[in-house]
Amino acid sequence: MTFERRILSPAPAFRETAAARSGEHTDRELELWLDERSRAHEFVVNKVPFSELDQWFFEEGTGDLCHRTGKFFRIEGIEIETNFGRTTRWMQPIILQPEVGILGYVTQRRKGVLHFLVQAKMEPGNINLLQLSPTVQATRSNFTQVHGGKLPPYLEYFLETARARVLVDQLQSEQGARFLRKRNRNVIVEVDEREVIPVYDDFHWVTLGQIQALLKQENVINMDSRTVLSCIRYHDSVEPDTLEKWRRGDSFADSVRYSQFADDNAALRTFDEIISWLTGLKVRYYLNVRRVPLDAVEGWVVEADRVHHVQDRFFSVVAVSVLAGSREVSSWSQPLIESAKGGMLCFVCQRKKGVLHFLVQGRVEPGHADSLELAPTLQCTPGNYDAARPDLYPPYYELVSTAPPEWIRYNRLQSEEGGRFYHDANRYMVLEVPPDVEIDVFDNYAWMTLHQIKEFIRFNNYINVEARSLLACIGFGDQWEEESR
Amino acid sequence: MTFERRILSPAPAFRETAAARSGEHTDRELELWLDERSRAHEFVVNKVPFSELDQWFFEEGTGDLCHRTGKFFRIEGIEIETNFGRTTRWMQPIILQPEVGILGYVTQRRKGVLHFLVQAKMEPGNINLLQLSPTVQATRSNFTQVHGGKLPPYLEYFLETARARVLVDQLQSEQGARFLRKRNRNVIVEVDEREVIPVYDDFHWVTLGQIQALLKQENVINMDSRTVLSCIRYHDSVEPDTLEKWRRGDSFADSVRYSQFADDNAALRTFDEIISWLTGLKVRYYLNVRRVPLDAVEGWVVEADRVHHVQDRFFSVVAVSVLAGSREVSSWSQPLIESAKGGMLCFVCQRKKGVLHFLVQGRVEPGHADSLELAPTLQCTPGNYDAARPDLYPPYYELVSTAPPEWIRYNRLQSEEGGRFYHDANRYMVLEVPPDVEIDVFDNYAWMTLHQIKEFIRFNNYINVEARSLLACIGFGDQWEEESR
Repeated sequence: MTFERRILSPAPAFRETAAARSGEHTDRELELWLDERSRAHEFVVNKVPFSELDQWFFEEGTGDLCHRTGKFFRIEGIEIETNFGRTTRWMQPIILQPEVGILGYVTQRRKGVLHFLVQAKMEPGNINLLQLSPTVQATRSNFTQVHGGKLPPYLEYFLETARARVLVDQLQSEQGARFLRKRNRNVIVEVDEREVIPVYDDFHWVTLGQIQALLKQENVINMDSRTVLSCIRYHDSVEPDTLEKWRRGDSFADSVRYSQFADDNAALRTFDEIISWLTGLKVRYYLNVRRVPLDAVEGWVVEADRVHHVQDRFFSVVAVSVLAGSREVSSWSQPLIESAKGGMLCFVCQRKKGVLHFLVQGRVEPGHADSLELAPTLQCTPGNYDAARPDLYPPYYELVSTAPPEWIRYNRLQSEEGGRFYHDANRYMVLEVPPDVEIDVFDNYAWMTLHQIKEFIRFNNYINVEARSLLACIGFGDQWEEESR
Repeated sequence: MTFERRILSPAPAFRETAAARSGEHTDRELELWLDERSRAHEFVVNKVPFSELDQWFFEEGTGDLCHRTGKFFRIEGIEIETNFGRTTRWMQPIILQPEVGILGYVTQRRKGVLHFLVQAKMEPGNINLLQLSPTVQATRSNFTQVHGGKLPPYLEYFLETARARVLVDQLQSEQGARFLRKRNRNVIVEVDEREVIPVYDDFHWVTLGQIQALLKQENVINMDSRTVLSCIRYHDSVEPDTLEKWRRGDSFADSVRYSQFADDNAALRTFDEIISWLTGLKVRYYLNVRRVPLDAVEGWVVEADRVHHVQDRFFSVVAVSVLAGSREVSSWSQPLIESAKGGMLCFVCQRKKGVLHFLVQGRVEPGHADSLELAPTLQCTPGNYDAARPDLYPPYYELVSTAPPEWIRYNRLQSEEGGRFYHDANRYMVLEVPPDVEIDVFDNYAWMTLHQIKEFIRFNNYINVEARSLLACIGFGDQWEEESR
């Protein structure tokens, strides 16, 4: 086109910071700061009976677990009918939290490189208590100070549009098996480099490359960080020579990079073909969700200290008391969801026509606003299946669980949101299957390039949070760059 | 990219057929066929009291208006709470029809030019009874033969994937003020040119150019046609010289064409900026919709022959008996919705930076699956407003209703779906405001190029049916090409 861009695409700046393995602070300084923040915070979490919860109670008449103010969230029940999967009707508890939260990074060019202001944040459900979160992780209850605490720092950069340039700003869905139609606003803003931004004790400037390196550790970069990072689009304004280098490159890093640029011309299926496949799935599968009182949820038992499934599968609702110094208020108690252990999230990928493609699953979950979202190839908790009936395990479970080590590109435990989930870590995996291994593609699955997946992310309620979380671990491939050196 | 396309983009074929003002049949032949089909069909529609409806009844306990089989649709009530607009709480009847219908065109290259197989279809609510519909307009009740009739012809091209190539296949929303989360599958398939397709009496091959010409008449191309046509993407695989010609062109036709190619580089705002604006609106506005029995809908009155608002505003539910020869069964009766007359749908557009931009409205409607969709600049029924309080009319009402004739690019009455709506025609308008006239842009409005609007159409529940319907009238601008000759 002939007009000059009013605003340059942020893609080159994102690629640059993703490649920056050191920034304003070295990795060593970052590590020391993290240790120091861990020590600085008194933070004791204990499971307690529901009766010891302060402000939380089982509502009369419904049995729903609610906060006295009516704010935060509540645990209700739902009744589900669907023709997706083997179980066509069930009931379960679910988290109802209609308000949209903000998950936001403040970024700034520092010595020319975009830095992210990360927060060392304690969450009661975190295995290791402290993880790195976005700069701001706030619900409307925070803004409006239902806590009675102070406003989260840096919130003004997200509320006052004149304070920063918006790089990413999308609504994204949360776990469809746990939340009823919950969405958060995923935001990255860039503050002018001349502005002096105060850095409080729990905050630290890091490059995206440093965040990606921390994603090679387990349980450091929290889920809220991962969903925001997954929204970054890397595929704009690149030199043809560089692109060609990535296309020809043999390394997994280069494959990941080139795949982010692989549009209709390089992909196995055009985007319109994928839209048609997705339309077919949305038409084929129905999902009827009816809200019911928690009292009325069949197959679940309310005990003094947990609400659980009669067979002790899936998840339970528990209660914790928290003593902390780093949060808006210094002590509180709240319900958390404790899921069955051993969850697995895996993207299977393979070079097709020389381009790295990811096998994406169309998946119905009860909390999805639009019934079906796109998920990783494998998303399951094996413990919820009957070990005596391996034939009933989900597709690709065997492929993933028996894959030879040389296919495994990524394999780490990462935590789900510690503000809602108790010690909930899933195994995040990326598996690259050699081109000559034939993989059956079932109806609900489709091969896509990263470019095509990223195109869907822009539009809310297409890519589920598990897939986004895993995409964040993949990033722009820089972690494999190091390995190939 | 370096790989050859597996499937060529259909955009050039769509542009070619849009420019084809005559095809296998001349306009005159088409006209004669339409007259002949009108005469061939006995079709008498009478309003009747609800008690004379066959198979339809007010359900005991709820008062909902339903069919004995539980199929087709039902009229229920909803209670709405929202912070969008002046009325923050109300109740109303609404159509519940959970099944996804197919609206589909069979197309085929005939003498090299893509032709659309249109159907002369009687619908009880149509003002002129007969209008042109897509080849297939079928609900699941049709497929599964709840009518007890025969399968709609040509349905096999949509159900059997091997029979045709898919050019368009998207889920699209219906009227958010009348339907609760209703969606249809909008499809265009292309059948191999060597295949002999039987042409039944009510069907006719026409070019897209001929359809566009008929959109310059009133009430000929039905709403189901318009929504499918709006999904066509024209902006791919074009010669740089041609694009440059359109960019430099002075005619409205050229402006419309160039706008379909105007991406981030030529648009006033980048797509990410628009996504951010839309995210902001979706966060700002809430919409709580609760289904209630029709009996419980306050402010509405059930009489023997209609269900209406106490002030006789908005719409009413009526009943008709139908005697017809052309439908799957030869006589039936059913409820229809009769809306207040005088509805207006207008896109205001203006050249900005030399590129035609459309002023798009973010609009909450109770039946939207995702609370807010993008709508035309003006979408209102003036009769529903208090004539004594012009200050309460919606934004741009005055601009549109007082526009000088030379700004008006399109101004026709077009019908809404005659299978659900009784004599419901809206005034469809496109207004081009000269570049030097300043237009205030309110919070819920944004300027977009046609390229940007079309990008949203691909993803379901972004562009509302009123906007899509109007976009179909705009097409690829060929109707103005003629005028400028």
